[in-house]
Amino acid sequence: MQVFLVAVGSEMLTPFRLDTNSLVITERLNAIGGDVRMKTVVGDDVEELVRTLTASFAWADLVVITGGLGPTEDDITRDAVSRVLDAPLEIDEGIVEGLRERFAKRGIKMASNNMRQAMVPRGAVVLDNPNGSAPGLWMERGSTSIVLLPGPPREMTPMLDAVIRDRLRPLAEDAGLFRRVLKITGRPESEVDAIAEPVYKKWISQPVPISTTILAVLGQIELHLTASAGSREAADKALESAVAELQAVLGPSVYSVDGRPLEAVVGDMLRQSHLTIAIAESCTGGLLTSRLTDVPGSSDYVERGFVCYSNRSKTELVGVDPSLIEQHGAVSEPVASAMAEGAASRTGSEIGIGITGIAGPGGGTEAKPVGTVVVAVKVHEGLTVRTFRLFGSREMVKFQAAQAAMNMLRLELIRRESGATRRAAG
Amino acid sequence: MQVFLVAVGSEMLTPFRLDTNSLVITERLNAIGGDVRMKTVVGDDVEELVRTLTASFAWADLVVITGGLGPTEDDITRDAVSRVLDAPLEIDEGIVEGLRERFAKRGIKMASNNMRQAMVPRGAVVLDNPNGSAPGLWMERGSTSIVLLPGPPREMTPMLDAVIRDRLRPLAEDAGLFRRVLKITGRPESEVDAIAEPVYKKWISQPVPISTTILAVLGQIELHLTASAGSREAADKALESAVAELQAVLGPSVYSVDGRPLEAVVGDMLRQSHLTIAIAESCTGGLLTSRLTDVPGSSDYVERGFVCYSNRSKTELVGVDPSLIEQHGAVSEPVASAMAEGAASRTGSEIGIGITGIAGPGGGTEAKPVGTVVVAVKVHEGLTVRTFRLFGSREMVKFQAAQAAMNMLRLELIRRESGATRRAAG
Repeated sequence: MQVFLVAVGSEMLTPFRLDTNSLVITERLNAIGGDVRMKTVVGDDVEELVRTLTASFAWADLVVITGGLGPTEDDITRDAVSRVLDAPLEIDEGIVEGLRERFAKRGIKMASNNMRQAMVPRGAVVLDNPNGSAPGLWMERGSTSIVLLPGPPREMTPMLDAVIRDRLRPLAEDAGLFRRVLKITGRPESEVDAIAEPVYKKWISQPVPISTTILAVLGQIELHLTASAGSREAADKALESAVAELQAVLGPSVYSVDGRPLEAVVGDMLRQSHLTIAIAESCTGGLLTSRLTDVPGSSDYVERGFVCYSNRSKTELVGVDPSLIEQHGAVSEPVASAMAEGAASRTGSEIGIGITGIAGPGGGTEAKPVGTVVVAVKVHEGLTVRTFRLFGSREMVKFQAAQAAMNMLRLELIRRESGATRRAAG
Repeated sequence: MQVFLVAVGSEMLTPFRLDTNSLVITERLNAIGGDVRMKTVVGDDVEELVRTLTASFAWADLVVITGGLGPTEDDITRDAVSRVLDAPLEIDEGIVEGLRERFAKRGIKMASNNMRQAMVPRGAVVLDNPNGSAPGLWMERGSTSIVLLPGPPREMTPMLDAVIRDRLRPLAEDAGLFRRVLKITGRPESEVDAIAEPVYKKWISQPVPISTTILAVLGQIELHLTASAGSREAADKALESAVAELQAVLGPSVYSVDGRPLEAVVGDMLRQSHLTIAIAESCTGGLLTSRLTDVPGSSDYVERGFVCYSNRSKTELVGVDPSLIEQHGAVSEPVASAMAEGAASRTGSEIGIGITGIAGPGGGTEAKPVGTVVVAVKVHEGLTVRTFRLFGSREMVKFQAAQAAMNMLRLELIRRESGATRRAAG
C-alpha cells in the first residue's frame, strides 16, 4: 500500500511549525503494511491542494490529508477534495444535528460558519469526531482511498485508529513493518555500534529481515529495529530474539526495550526495592528531582529534594563542611559525596544523590572546564562517585548530568541485586 | 518569489525523523521576499524525485533541495536533477582535487565512491562546502532556479547563507517578510484574541501590511506578526508601532517581545532589583527551580530550592505547621502560603514561592480534582496566593504551574515597581 501524506495549513509553512502528525500516522500505517512514499505540506490554498492531490492519484493507494477541516474560510480541504473528485458539496443532516447538540450542550449559540463543517462531497463516508466539531471523511476514487482527518492531534489520532480498525486493516495485505526501540546510556555511539553491528547485521538476511538504525539522542543512544513480516506474530518472534541478542552483547547499558524513559525505569526499581531517595542538586538546579517526579506515583519513593545552589545552602541544607568546599572547591568529589551523604542522613532515606558541576556558559577554569560535573550516589553504606566531562549548552549539560546520575543509581541497584541473588544462591 | 522546498532522505519518512532544515530555510528566504508555498519529503528514490521536481517547475521560481548529496548509492539527488534538466553528469576536476586534499589532510585514503560527489550536471555552478565533503550546486532552467544543499544542518546553513548573499539577494525584489513574536501568559487565547484583533486587523491594510497569527502553546499565547515590506527599515518601523499598540491594549500580560522565555524575563527583573529568591515546590517537583536556573548567571538570585514532596518534608524544610496540613489538606492556600513564607524566612531571601497541587493522573478528589494547583508568592512582606485549575497530563500540569508561579512573581514585581515610581513622583 503506497501512502501519500498531505498536511494542510499555512502555519506549517512558517519558520515556527512542523507537521508532527505525520510521525504518528507513519507509525500506525507501517504496522499494517503501509509504505509512506512521500509527504507534503501545502498552505491554505485551494488551487495548490487540488494540484497536489490530482498528481498523487496516479501512484498512491492511500492519501491521508490532515487539517483544513475547521469552520473558517481558511479551511479549504473539503472544497479541494470536492473539486478533485468532481463530487459536489452537500449538507449532511447528521452532522448538522451533531453540531447543534454539541453547541446546545455547552449553552453556546452556534455561529453560522460552523455549517461549513456539515458540507460533505457527494458519496463520502462521515467519520465521527468524539473530541471536536470537525468530522472526518473517507472517499474512494479508482484504486485510491482518501481520508480527511482534523489537524489537532487529540482529534486526529483516535479517528485514525478507528479508520485503521474499520477500513484499512481488513484490506491490508498480510504484512507490515513492526518496530522495537532499545535505549542505551553511558556509552558512546561508536562503541555501541561496534558492539551491536555484528548482531544486527546478521538479522538483515534472516527469513524475517530486521533492519537497524542507530540514533544518538542527547544523553542516550537508540537502536531502532524494524522487522518486515507477514504477520505481527512472526515479527514479534523475530524482534524478541534480536532484542535478546543485543541485550546479551550490550549488557546493562541497555536500560529500556519497551519505550520507558530512564526516570520510569529507575522509579520502578526503587518501588520494587522499597527504597526512598533524597537528592541534593547544585548545577542541575532541580532537574533531576523534577524528572524523577515526572513519573506517576513517584511520591512513593521521592522523599524530598534540595537545590543547593549557593555554597551556604550546601552547608545549611545537607551539612557539607565549609572546609571541604574551601579545600577542594564546590565542584569536587568530596563535596558531591558529602551532599549525597547529607541528603540521605538528614532525611533517613536509604539513597542519597549529590550533583555539583559547571553548567556554563561561564564559570569554567582550565582544571574544571564548563561541562565538568561530579555525581555521587550513596545506597545504604555504599558510595560511588564519578566526574564527567559533558558537552553542549547549559541545558544540555543539565540534562546529561541528570541522565548520568540516574544511570549510576540504576547500575548500582542492579549490582546490589545480583550480589544479593548470588549470596542467596551461594 | 514562489519557493518549493524538497527534503530528500528515506529516514524522514519513518516515524522518527522530521525535516527541520525547512524551518531555517523558510526564515532566511522569507527575509528576502521568498514565499514558501509548499514543502515535500521524498525518499531515496530517483523516480519519485524526478516526478516531484518536474511538476514544480511549472510554478516555482526557486526550488531548494536538501540532502541526497553524499557518496553512497542512496544519494540520488544529483542523478535526479541531471535527468530532470537533461544535463549529463560530468566529473568536476575542481571537486576531485578538493576531495583529494581533504582526505590527504586527514591522512585517510579516499574511498572510490567519493568520486560520486564530484559528478556535476553540465552547466551547474559548484557551491563550496567548508564543513563537509559534499559540495552544493546551483542551476537554472527557464525562470526557475534550483539549489542543491547537503542535509546536515551545519553544512547546509552556511551554504544557504552564501547562496542568499551571492545569488538570491541581488535578484530579490526589494521586499521581504519580517517578523516579531509577542509572548503572553495568564490569559486565555479567546480573550487575547478579542482584545488584540481590533489592533492587528487595522495593520493588515496599512502601507506596510502586517498579518498576525495567534498561536496557543502550553502555558502561553504567541502573537506572530509578519510585515511585508520593501526594506528591513520600513518593516522594523511598522512592526515596532504595531507591537507598541498591542502592548498598550494587552498590558502587562505581554511578557516578551524579543523572544526571551519567561524564566529569562523574570531572571532579569530579579537581577535588576537585587532580590534573591527561595522556592518550595511540591507538585512541580523541582521544575520551577530548574527552569529558573536554566538562565545563565541565575546563581546571582536563586539562593536555593526545596522540593518538599512528602508532608513531613514540608514541615521539616520550610516549617509548615502540621496542623495546617491536617486542617486544610496539603493542597490548600494556607499550606502554599506557609511554604512561601518558610522558604523566604529560613533562607533570608526577600522572595519566597510555595507551590502545592495535584499533578495527576491519580490523587484527585471532587473538591480538588487533578490539575488543582495553589501558588503563593511572597515579596518582602506582601503575600499573594492563587488557586489554579490546570489541564492535561502530569507533565503539562507541572509546566503550567511553574509558568503561573513565574508570572505571578513577574506581575507582583511590576506592581511594586510602578508603586515605587508613583511614590517617587508623588
